[in-house]
Amino acid sequence: MVSKNQIKLIRQLEQKKFRRRDGLFVAEGPKVVGDLLRAGFQPTAVYATEEWGGAEAVFSAGDSNVSDSIMLVGDDELRKLSFLQHPQQVLALVPIPESTREVSVHGLCLALDGVQDPGNLGTIIRIADWFGISTIFCSEGTADAWNPKVVQATMGSIARVNIIYTNLARLIDSAQVPVYGTLLDGEDIYTQPLSSEGLIVMGNEGNGISPDIRSRITHRLLIPTFHTGDTAESLNVAIATAITCSEFRRRNRH
Amino acid sequence: MVSKNQIKLIRQLEQKKFRRRDGLFVAEGPKVVGDLLRAGFQPTAVYATEEWGGAEAVFSAGDSNVSDSIMLVGDDELRKLSFLQHPQQVLALVPIPESTREVSVHGLCLALDGVQDPGNLGTIIRIADWFGISTIFCSEGTADAWNPKVVQATMGSIARVNIIYTNLARLIDSAQVPVYGTLLDGEDIYTQPLSSEGLIVMGNEGNGISPDIRSRITHRLLIPTFHTGDTAESLNVAIATAITCSEFRRRNRH
Repeated sequence: MVSKNQIKLIRQLEQKKFRRRDGLFVAEGPKVVGDLLRAGFQPTAVYATEEWGGAEAVFSAGDSNVSDSIMLVGDDELRKLSFLQHPQQVLALVPIPESTREVSVHGLCLALDGVQDPGNLGTIIRIADWFGISTIFCSEGTADAWNPKVVQATMGSIARVNIIYTNLARLIDSAQVPVYGTLLDGEDIYTQPLSSEGLIVMGNEGNGISPDIRSRITHRLLIPTFHTGDTAESLNVAIATAITCSEFRRRNRH
Repeated sequence: MVSKNQIKLIRQLEQKKFRRRDGLFVAEGPKVVGDLLRAGFQPTAVYATEEWGGAEAVFSAGDSNVSDSIMLVGDDELRKLSFLQHPQQVLALVPIPESTREVSVHGLCLALDGVQDPGNLGTIIRIADWFGISTIFCSEGTADAWNPKVVQATMGSIARVNIIYTNLARLIDSAQVPVYGTLLDGEDIYTQPLSSEGLIVMGNEGNGISPDIRSRITHRLLIPTFHTGDTAESLNVAIATAITCSEFRRRNRH
């Protein structure tokens, strides 16, 4: 039986200030919760219906920290907790990873400068996972990665990608690596040299990369359009990220 | 003054059956409506607030068919008509283009086999526009492109891409062109020969390409992952479309 107070505490986690206060985020569904458990995340609470096959897996793995935290709930109860239109068997409260590790750039990393839409951020985290980019640096103005909408949009990839909120200008100034950005006056991404190390900066949905960061870009790239008319089009930031990451990886295969 | 009956007729266009009955779709905002007007679409009605700068452009272009259809409305009235959370100056009722033209494959085209999510479909139309792919064939099971959510997600690209609903199996059997599809057992897209003509098939979000169409694919492609762990990931269908179109265009530049 889930108490009214528990419901309130969970529902509050939709807001960033409460996630920060409690150090927790909400993950839902067998795929996302399963990926987090496999990656070693230790939820403080797991609310699951009988359908959820994951409970058995957790018990048989003998992880008593996690198995102690599992609470069986009914479909009606899960519906009261869930942020989803169609709740999916399990909801977990998961500690937000602390970013105590040294902030430095290894290999190829993404830097998000004010990406605002939770769906875009979640999709970008999923793209990074696919292309083996293990760290995403986010400006403070970027959407919060532990927003339930972002967590769900990552389809579990949030379990495998480090998300670090930091001052991007300071990071770039200290990192001494190539800094790539897609800009309207950039050079054709398909023919420019692309390194296997460095930062790929992606900007805000409406305004692109901020002037402060734009001035620090060392390699200006352009994804050329193949449209022949005179009407202005644009690419969504997640789409541009996918094309850019694909091209970097294609060019630096082993 | 917009009548209750007009409001009802417009709101009904959220549903496919009413769009089919009336042969109309709803487009909103200066970008989408502007792109449709520039592409020669002739709305049967345009509801605009005084803010909308487009009205003047339409009048000065001397298109009396369109200018006669403009109705000035207040913000409150527009809010009653709009499908958007934040209505954007203008809403137009636009005739759905008839697909009377011969169904045949010229150059590079997309074929969508059951793409369900309106946001994905809209994003794919936008990607096609960027990469100069002028025609998208959709299976009958694909989301309706004239759904207001799709129209808005295209950011105006729906004005420049032909969308044709048809039987994909029959199209493929008659087209006699290479048929590409991304499949888990496909060959590395970065190294396979890619033609400048043919069909690129993209499948349903959950189930991929249907067996009926899969058996007709002549070139099986794979977007390789660069992730090193053992956890299964996937790419969203719009993201996979973007990477595939980018690679086709890179390889067939003039």
